Amino acid sequence: MAEQWWFDQVKSLNEEARQQAFDRQNQLTKPAGSLGCLEQLAVQLASMQGVAKPQLKNIQISVFAADHGVAEEGVSAFPQAVTAQMIANFAHGGAAVCVLARQHQAGFEVINLGTVAEVADLPAVRTEVIARSSANFCVQAAMTESQLQRALDSGASAIDRAQEKGAALFVGGEMGIANTTSATALSAALTQLNPSQLAGPGTGIGSEKLNHKVAVIERALNYHRDSLQQPIEVLRRLGGFEIAALAGAYIRAGQIGMPVLVDGFISSAAALVATRVNAGVRDWLLFSHNSAEPGHQLVLAELEAHPLLDLQMRLGEGSGAALAIPLLRSACELHSQMATFEEASVAEKQ
Amino acid sequence: MAEQWWFDQVKSLNEEARQQAFDRQNQLTKPAGSLGCLEQLAVQLASMQGVAKPQLKNIQISVFAADHGVAEEGVSAFPQAVTAQMIANFAHGGAAVCVLARQHQAGFEVINLGTVAEVADLPAVRTEVIARSSANFCVQAAMTESQLQRALDSGASAIDRAQEKGAALFVGGEMGIANTTSATALSAALTQLNPSQLAGPGTGIGSEKLNHKVAVIERALNYHRDSLQQPIEVLRRLGGFEIAALAGAYIRAGQIGMPVLVDGFISSAAALVATRVNAGVRDWLLFSHNSAEPGHQLVLAELEAHPLLDLQMRLGEGSGAALAIPLLRSACELHSQMATFEEASVAEKQ
Repeated sequence: MAEQWWFDQVKSLNEEARQQAFDRQNQLTKPAGSLGCLEQLAVQLASMQGVAKPQLKNIQISVFAADHGVAEEGVSAFPQAVTAQMIANFAHGGAAVCVLARQHQAGFEVINLGTVAEVADLPAVRTEVIARSSANFCVQAAMTESQLQRALDSGASAIDRAQEKGAALFVGGEMGIANTTSATALSAALTQLNPSQLAGPGTGIGSEKLNHKVAVIERALNYHRDSLQQPIEVLRRLGGFEIAALAGAYIRAGQIGMPVLVDGFISSAAALVATRVNAGVRDWLLFSHNSAEPGHQLVLAELEAHPLLDLQMRLGEGSGAALAIPLLRSACELHSQMATFEEASVAEKQ
Repeated sequence: MAEQWWFDQVKSLNEEARQQAFDRQNQLTKPAGSLGCLEQLAVQLASMQGVAKPQLKNIQISVFAADHGVAEEGVSAFPQAVTAQMIANFAHGGAAVCVLARQHQAGFEVINLGTVAEVADLPAVRTEVIARSSANFCVQAAMTESQLQRALDSGASAIDRAQEKGAALFVGGEMGIANTTSATALSAALTQLNPSQLAGPGTGIGSEKLNHKVAVIERALNYHRDSLQQPIEVLRRLGGFEIAALAGAYIRAGQIGMPVLVDGFISSAAALVATRVNAGVRDWLLFSHNSAEPGHQLVLAELEAHPLLDLQMRLGEGSGAALAIPLLRSACELHSQMATFEEASVAEKQ
């Protein structure tokens, strides 16, 4: 892949299709506006797909998994071995996001970017190992430049595969013990918010360990404080392989014009990175849910995002986004299949 | 049907199945609680279905349509003929709820309880006409006792048909020009809240017409003020055929133990009536969405209900509930199909 492809221009939305879809919404047999967010969603998807009646038949879910050096600071409730174990669980279809992918007939893959524990040799796992883990960003940059490039490329490749399969929507997921710590550090560096406002229980740490997590993040931000001007450098220093892959996927999706449905806190932190690296990416992002992780609200506000769901979920894996898939499909099907006032001979508003 | 069957006892939830489901949730490969509302939903459905792993294969959507005498007070943005026209639209599959029923493979029927305009003779319409419309409740009771009985029976029959078809969940919908006026009057009478707090734009009236709508409701409440002690009498005086049918359906669903997914403001007003007539019904009600109609929040608070969705919808027809169907199915499928920590050899929390 070309060096620094992530700065290349993002595709423009189709304003003509947007207008056609908007006009159609007002002819359907319902009071204008009564389908709420679903109306805007249909219009938005029309502008992305460049057609008056958008469709979401094929959907691709790609989960990126990797370990984090910062886990050695004791910031997670679960042992680091869980990253590799969950990769096997994804491969066997036992994880939440796999169940949802089956329910919604979405394509599914898991990409191993590197784990400390051995991952069993499973044909269902795509192996793109960069290193056994990122480095502990409290004491050095999480990634070398070449590692960052490989992680971003890995995300972009997932989009290219999705496009080859005819996917109309991309959902990225992530798995990596300690990755809320990385997502919080990234969000703090990019928003100037305090880590104590952004940090949360992740997989379920108590308040004492949460204070420790905040201190770890503050230490990292202090260590890197003179090198956090460029978003791509913030990602290299404080990110992780799977977060960088998500950011790369989102940027590439915008460049080829594939709509993205963003999951929870970690995915949104990756989305924030992506939009800071390449602002046009924002046009191609749809947001699925408000997670229970406190930092998520603040990152969503920064992205001016209004997600569809608020079910107090905090699992990651792309599960919140996968859950929202049928809502997006409903928006499209209502938009294309409802009768117009004229077709149904229904009287309009007086 | 037996007279006053609506007071008969509601089925009890199965506490053993609830406990089994609760225990299973904590063995699945995810941090405890990380699926948020979906976990509680699975546990709740287990207690309703009396099995540790609930399922929602067959779902029935029944839309009740009827005209309202109070429409003559000029409270709606649409002409009254729309009720009959929309019945034809339901029969032809062009209405929003029909599109969603197809998307989610739910059974669908529309029941005509009486319209002022002629309804074309369509085989897909179930005709159970009580009268051409309810009476204008500003000057008399909306229904006679026998009309009320027939409307409640019509709702109960829909549940019996759903049960015969093996439905695991019932969604009721409604259509009737001016029915937010009836729902607001009912809600005000049952909650003692002021009509001005509860009334909203419905299909889209402006602020002047909204003031008029509030005045109409206040006039009705004043007219009936000495006869609003019994909830069933409140329904007879201020309800409508389709709202009474929904209340009857909800009560009957609780009596036979069929879970109900409640739609928006009008359906929730019917649910409030149902729980005031027979308190045990509340156990069998799940709530789908917060509608944009302002009274809905207050009625939901009265019912201690926390709906799944908040998408600023205000269409009725059962559309918000139909939209939420895949979320309920996801709760069941995640609950039954996810691997346990033991099955997947994933380490638990430290």
